[in-house]
Order: sequence, then C-alpha cells, then structure tokens
Amino acid sequence: MPNASNTPIAKPKIALVIGAGDAIGSAIARKFAEQGLIVCAARRHGDKLQPLIDELKGNHCQAHAFSCDARKEDQVRDLFQQIETAIGEIDVVVFNIGANVPMGILETDSQKFFKIWEMACFAGFLSGREAARYMVPRQRGTILFTGATASVRGAAGFAAFASAKHGLRALAQSMARELGPQNIHVAHVVIDAAVDTAWIMDNVPQAQALKKQDGIVRPDDLADNYVHLYRQPRNAWTFELDVRPWQETW
Amino acid sequence: MPNASNTPIAKPKIALVIGAGDAIGSAIARKFAEQGLIVCAARRHGDKLQPLIDELKGNHCQAHAFSCDARKEDQVRDLFQQIETAIGEIDVVVFNIGANVPMGILETDSQKFFKIWEMACFAGFLSGREAARYMVPRQRGTILFTGATASVRGAAGFAAFASAKHGLRALAQSMARELGPQNIHVAHVVIDAAVDTAWIMDNVPQAQALKKQDGIVRPDDLADNYVHLYRQPRNAWTFELDVRPWQETW
Amino acid sequence: MPNASNTPIAKPKIALVIGAGDAIGSAIARKFAEQGLIVCAARRHGDKLQPLIDELKGNHCQAHAFSCDARKEDQVRDLFQQIETAIGEIDVVVFNIGANVPMGILETDSQKFFKIWEMACFAGFLSGREAARYMVPRQRGTILFTGATASVRGAAGFAAFASAKHGLRALAQSMARELGPQNIHVAHVVIDAAVDTAWIMDNVPQAQALKKQDGIVRPDDLADNYVHLYRQPRNAWTFELDVRPWQETW
Amino acid sequence: MPNASNTPIAKPKIALVIGAGDAIGSAIARKFAEQGLIVCAARRHGDKLQPLIDELKGNHCQAHAFSCDARKEDQVRDLFQQIETAIGEIDVVVFNIGANVPMGILETDSQKFFKIWEMACFAGFLSGREAARYMVPRQRGTILFTGATASVRGAAGFAAFASAKHGLRALAQSMARELGPQNIHVAHVVIDAAVDTAWIMDNVPQAQALKKQDGIVRPDDLADNYVHLYRQPRNAWTFELDVRPWQETW
Repeated sequence: MPNASNTPIAKPKIALVIGAGDAIGSAIARKFAEQGLIVCAARRHGDKLQPLIDELKGNHCQAHAFSCDARKEDQVRDLFQQIETAIGEIDVVVFNIGANVPMGILETDSQKFFKIWEMACFAGFLSGREAARYMVPRQRGTILFTGATASVRGAAGFAAFASAKHGLRALAQSMARELGPQNIHVAHVVIDAAVDTAWIMDNVPQAQALKKQDGIVRPDDLADNYVHLYRQPRNAWTFELDVRPWQETW
Repeated sequence: MPNASNTPIAKPKIALVIGAGDAIGSAIARKFAEQGLIVCAARRHGDKLQPLIDELKGNHCQAHAFSCDARKEDQVRDLFQQIETAIGEIDVVVFNIGANVPMGILETDSQKFFKIWEMACFAGFLSGREAARYMVPRQRGTILFTGATASVRGAAGFAAFASAKHGLRALAQSMARELGPQNIHVAHVVIDAAVDTAWIMDNVPQAQALKKQDGIVRPDDLADNYVHLYRQPRNAWTFELDVRPWQETW
Repeated sequence: MPNASNTPIAKPKIALVIGAGDAIGSAIARKFAEQGLIVCAARRHGDKLQPLIDELKGNHCQAHAFSCDARKEDQVRDLFQQIETAIGEIDVVVFNIGANVPMGILETDSQKFFKIWEMACFAGFLSGREAARYMVPRQRGTILFTGATASVRGAAGFAAFASAKHGLRALAQSMARELGPQNIHVAHVVIDAAVDTAWIMDNVPQAQALKKQDGIVRPDDLADNYVHLYRQPRNAWTFELDVRPWQETW
Repeated sequence: MPNASNTPIAKPKIALVIGAGDAIGSAIARKFAEQGLIVCAARRHGDKLQPLIDELKGNHCQAHAFSCDARKEDQVRDLFQQIETAIGEIDVVVFNIGANVPMGILETDSQKFFKIWEMACFAGFLSGREAARYMVPRQRGTILFTGATASVRGAAGFAAFASAKHGLRALAQSMARELGPQNIHVAHVVIDAAVDTAWIMDNVPQAQALKKQDGIVRPDDLADNYVHLYRQPRNAWTFELDVRPWQETW
C-alpha cells in the first residue's frame, strides 16, 4: 500500500559495529538487529562476517558486511560514505576494537607500542570522528566505545595496552562533553573481566569451570548494555558503566 | 485451579524503595511495579505515599506503604521484618534518601553535618546491612543506592553533603565487593544533574525552560536504569553508572 | 637587645597535631619542631604525650601537650582557643586520627559504624572547621588531613572504614576548593600501605622482615611530606599525594 | 687530599631532563643542579639550551646540552648511550614534553591527533623505556613524568591532548607498578593550571595580573616537587601529586 498520507515513512536506522569480532562485536550486532536496526558490521577481513550476516538475514534482519582496517583513515572514510550513500543514515556507531598482549616494559618494542595504540586508540579516533562528521550536521546520533580494566587502571605488564585504552577513554570523555550539547550521545563501557571468547576459552585454564558458574561475561548479556545506552532518552544519558561477573574480585 | 503439579508456584518478588519521595523514589517504585514486582514504599511519613499506592493499585499492581525513619536502627529492622513476615521475600532494595543544603564550611554547624551524614550515609548503611541480613542466607538479591555529583567530587559549599555521599558510595563499593561473590548485586547510580522534582521546579529559576528542552533528568527515565541494573544477569553486573542530560556540561 | 626598630619580631608559628599518636602523629610533630615551629600535640589522653614533649624540649624546641577528644565539639573548640590565647597563632593543623578494624558488613553493628565515622570523619570536620574559623579571618594557614587506601577505594570488610575515610577526603577536597581562594592550603595525604607502628609490628607476622627491606612506611619519612606540603608557596599547592613503599603492589 | 682510603669516591649522579624547555624543564634542571647532580638537558634544538648551560656552569654546576627529537627511537637510544658512556650513570630522568593545541573533534585531522600523541605519549614511552633499560640492571633510579589537567579529565576541545596525556599517565602508572619492586621510583606530576611560560604570558590576557597575585604556577616552585619526589626514600614513595595555584577553582 502506498504511503498516501503526508507523514513520512520512518526509514530504518543503521547500527554500525566496527570491530565486529566473533564474540562481543557479533553479539552487539545481533542485539541491534533484534531492535529493528539495519546492521552494518565491519572488521579487517569482512569475509569472516558471512556466518553472522547469514544468521541475521535468516532472522529477517537486514545486515551487511564490510572489510575495513579501521587504522586507515581512507578506509574508515570510505566505510561511512558507502553506508550513508548506499544504505542509509547511521544512527549508532560501536567501536569495539582492541587487543591486549601483556608484556613487560623492557619487552615492549616501539613497533608493538605503536600498533597497540593504533588499534585500540587511533582507530577509535578515526571511527568516532567520522561518526561525528555525519552526526553533527544532523544533530543526532550515538557513539559507543568498548573499554576494559586497563581503561581505568594501569598495571605491571600493561604499559602499552593501558596507555592505549586510557587514551581511548579520554577521547570518549572529551567527545561526550563536546558532542553531548549537540544531541550526540557518546558513552564508554568498561568491561572489567574476562569475556567468553574463543581466545579466553583456549587460553585461560579455568575458563570452562568459570563459565559454568557465570564467572565469565557472556557477550549477549554484555551487549544488552549497549542497547540500553542507545535507548536512553536524552534527558538521562549515561557516559560510563562497568561490567563484571558476580564473583569477580576487583 | 489448584496447583496440582509438583512445580512450585513462583512467588511474586518484592521491591522495597526506602526514601520513596514524590519524584525519584516514586518513579522507581512505578517501574518495578510495571515489572510485576510487589512494591513496598517507605518514607518518613508513610501517609504521604497514599496517592502512589492508590495509583499502583489502580494499575492492578500490589503496593504497600510504610512509615520508616531510616536513620533509626529499630525502625529499619522492623520495616524489613514486617515485609518479610507479612508479605514475602524482598528481592531488591533501593536506598534513595539524601538531602543537599549547600553551605559554607563556617556555616556548617556540627548538628547539620551530623544530620546530613545520618540521612545520606548512615541510613544507607542501616538499610543496606538489613538487606544483606536477609539476602546473604538466601544467597541472592539486589541492593541499589542513589548517588549524586557530590558522591564523586567535592566542591566549595558542599563539605557536608559531599562527605556524606562519598561515604555512601564507599559503603556501596565495599558491599559490592563483599557481597558480589555471595550472589548479591550491589550497584550505585550517580545522578550528575538536576532532576525534575517539585523542589527543583520551585527553586531553580530556569528549570521550566530547561525541562522543555530535556535539560533536566526525568524521574521516569532515570528509573529505567534501576530496572536495567536489577535485570542484569550475574555474569554481567554493573557496579556504577552515571546519568545526566545531553546538554549538561560536566 | 630590645627590638628598637619598627620591624616587628616574627612570632614563632604553631603547628597543631590532632591525633598525635606514638608513630605518625609524633613523627609529624618532630618534623615541624625541626622547622622551628612551636608544636602543640593533642590526643585523647594527653599524658601519653609526655615522652614526646620531653624529647622535643630536650632538643630546644617549644612543645605543649593537650588532652582532647576530637569527637567532642566543645573540646575541639577549647583546644584551639587555649592555644590561640595562651601560646599564639596556629599556622598549620594536622588531623591524623583514624582507626581501622576490618569486619564484614553483617558484623558491623551500628555502634561501630558510627564510632568509626565519628573518629575518622566527624572529628576531622570539627578540627578542620575550627582551624578555618581562625584562619579565614587571617586569610592564611594550612590544614593537612591523613588519608589511607580506604580513602580512595572500598573493599570487602572495609565498609565502615572506607565510608568514613571517603567522607574525610570529600571534606578535605571541598574545603580545599572553598578555602584555597582564601589563601588557606588544604591537603590530603593518602597512605596506601602499612606504617611502622607498634600495632603493625605486633599484629602483622611478616612486619619485621618487611621493615628490614624498607617494605613498611617509616613515620619519619612519611612526615617529610607534611612539611613539604606546608612549605609549598601558594602559586604551587598540592591537594593530594599518595605514599607507599617501593615493593608495594597496588 | 688524595682519596687514600678504600672507600670509593661517590661519583656524581646525573639528572637527564628530556624536554628542557625555557620554563618548566629549565627550572627542573636548575633544581637538580642545585642538589649537586650533573645536569643533562635535551630538547629538539639543543643549541637553544646554551643560555641554561652557561648559567649552570656559571654557578659551578656541571651541565651538558643535547639535541634530541624524543619521538625518534634511535635518537633517544643515542642520547642515553652517549650520556652513560661519556658522562656517567643517569640517576633520574624527567620527561617533560607536551604541547596542547585545543581544537574541536571535527577540526582534529589525523595528522594532528597522531603528532600530539607522538610528542606527549610515544616520546614518553621511548624515554621511560630507555631509562628502564639502564636502571633495571642496576636496580635503582627515578623516572618522573609531567602531566596536566588533561591527564585526568577529558574536556570539549581536548580530545587529542587528553587522549595523549591519559596515555602517558597510564604508562607511568603501569611502569610504577612494574618497576617499583625493582627499586625504580616512577612518579607523575599533574600540573592542573597555567604555568608562567612565555607562551602563557603572550597568549593569556590576564596572565600578568594573575602572576602578580601568585595565580600562575612558577616553574621554580613547581620544580621543587620533582626534587622532593627524587629525594623520597624508598619506604615512602609517591606516585602522583597535583599542583595548582591557591586561587584556582578546579
């Protein structure tokens, strides 16, 4: 039936997840799809996203995969441009990249220090700024960053990772203060614990036992918090919340 | 129809709101009622709760009013005992008391300093500990505390209030770390802005203008965060989140 | 020789140490005495201060002992009045009271919660405010508070102590922000470790071994920081510094 | 008199100041020279250090100037190697580089974001790690980092600078926790105010008036805190202290 009235048809909104890994990023994508948003998922090798896209489409959700190395300015620019041009308006961007390799300060070669920063902080800047470029003229939008324990606390063996994650958090906080009054909600989720990812399951000896007693964060339950932040009306925005399992001592 | 099977009937759960003022506390009570919980609302003069109770009952929710001066140990003990005995198991307790009267340090007489602490911190201890007494043996429950800007930052004119609210936050954090591993979720909500209460509307000159542009926290939208915290599964608990309007500079 | 010139004789300044225990408080008193200040030392049972007073006098320093229960408003008022009337102008006040008895939340009876707050926070308010009463009219002075790990972090078993110490820190921060522009320097020292006190030596099994390798804070070295804060010119005031031994993991 | 005994002559210790600008860095250099240390001062264009070197030598202090772009790994490596080989053992390293150019997030081009990080954070990593390479085998040394308001708080217009300075602080904190137990003291000074530099005097309209009333941090008085940190015995090390003028509202 044609839209005969004068009221415009509400166009579906787009959630862009940058760093849509198998665990957290994919879970966030699923939750936004459940909310009726079109999901655009991006990771370095976009072909790895095919199972997620198939699954979402199987659930009658719109979903698109993109290859993007978010450390490259032109690739980030192209990603946003392509989506905005071909699919529609990006309403929420989730930046979810970050890799932690603990190492002593003397073992931290400058290449590693740079790469960890480039991935965990600089790519966040490129993504957040590109989001702002589209959202500021529209005076609306949401930008969500994924943080970690190292975002709020340094530790022995974590000089490079903590430096990068603190940098990302300061970026998020500065953007929140600058863009909030422009009706753009910027928030930061501090995951203060191990998450149920393939890597954790393979590398943390007691992970299976912990998982059985809910001692590891489930990506699905974590992802609910991203939707919660997205759904907050603008009179009551949260900048930061932390997440950890019940038994975590912190 | 009688419950002929062996499966027990799920008893309705109880949300107890201590400091159920007209604005925030009442909004929290409503939200928990909407979630199907029996609401027990307590404030110093319980008769003031009648309109809220009538409203909730009108919406087919179970609701009970209590008079309780939460600074008095025996009254807090009686409140919990009465509810647990006569109504049922308290599943979530919200502590929502706190009054801020800014004053310079030289104008802060010791009686005021004490009373502000007694109301904002000591009553929180009595309420939280009493909740723990019932929840620890059951190894389940949720305890939520309401914080403010002064919970995380001192300021000129706020020596008494910031001292009390910092004290409440440290209590909440210590309880979270002690009771988390006992399956009791303790969380703290930092309201970093003015809320739409009768007092704010009467005393802040630009409040009406602010409200029109969503520049003041609406109790209803704030209250959604309490329900969100309550609903979190135990693999992904939040200890703290902050709330403020979009245009708030902080 | 009489002071025939018009230049006034510089009157000796007074350092008042409230909570002049055998370890930290006494060490602070000694350091200020070395700096040429008249020392007024106060503790609940002033007679216990006799050895310190004798020692200071033996070193040709002026020193006075006072009995004062700093939780009692009238005693605090009398202490300041007596010193200001009979001895001279108090230039720096150190508040150094605080006792930590770890206990679970269910074992924290309301009397204990109150007493810990009364000693660690309320007495600090009474002392700091009384100092402000003399210093604000003169538009000069220094007020130093002793903090602990629990001032900045809650922990299981520390609900009462952390609540009180957070309250003291917020008081100090609020006073710093209010009184700084009145030329009164308020600062807070966070001792994030065990200190070499009789209690620690008696109760911590490995204390002697730790001490031999500088693994426990020495009161004398700690006290240097109080003098450093006192000596800071007003263009470069510190509000807070932390102290811990080299090997402390934190 | 010749040193006929078997006791070794204490070799003079070296203080290396990286980022020895005209104001803060030079003041720190002077203070360490006063303490009897040999001063090695490094900045991008070492020839600009001649007046400082002349002044120090005029005061019978040993002082050396070095050109070093601290963002370049090989230059940092050479700087340390040259000093350790030709002059002696570096006992304290001060990292004092950082430039703030406020700009909105949309005006922050990626080149600027990178350069600010490279200067304020990456150069700090290169300097701190190189210091650690010499100090860890010796199991002694001090590494001091200069921070700013932006090290602890993001703000509108400060995304790039706050990101870099938060990154530097997390590096310092992680190094402190890793290297403390190796007898290496790492500390971080948060300058939470304007400092009396040529740039401030030229660009802040009310700077002269502020200066007259001690409303701007004097480099000399600030520098005393670096010496204080350096002098702390290892049983009582400070990781962080903040500095601001008396009248600063913060």
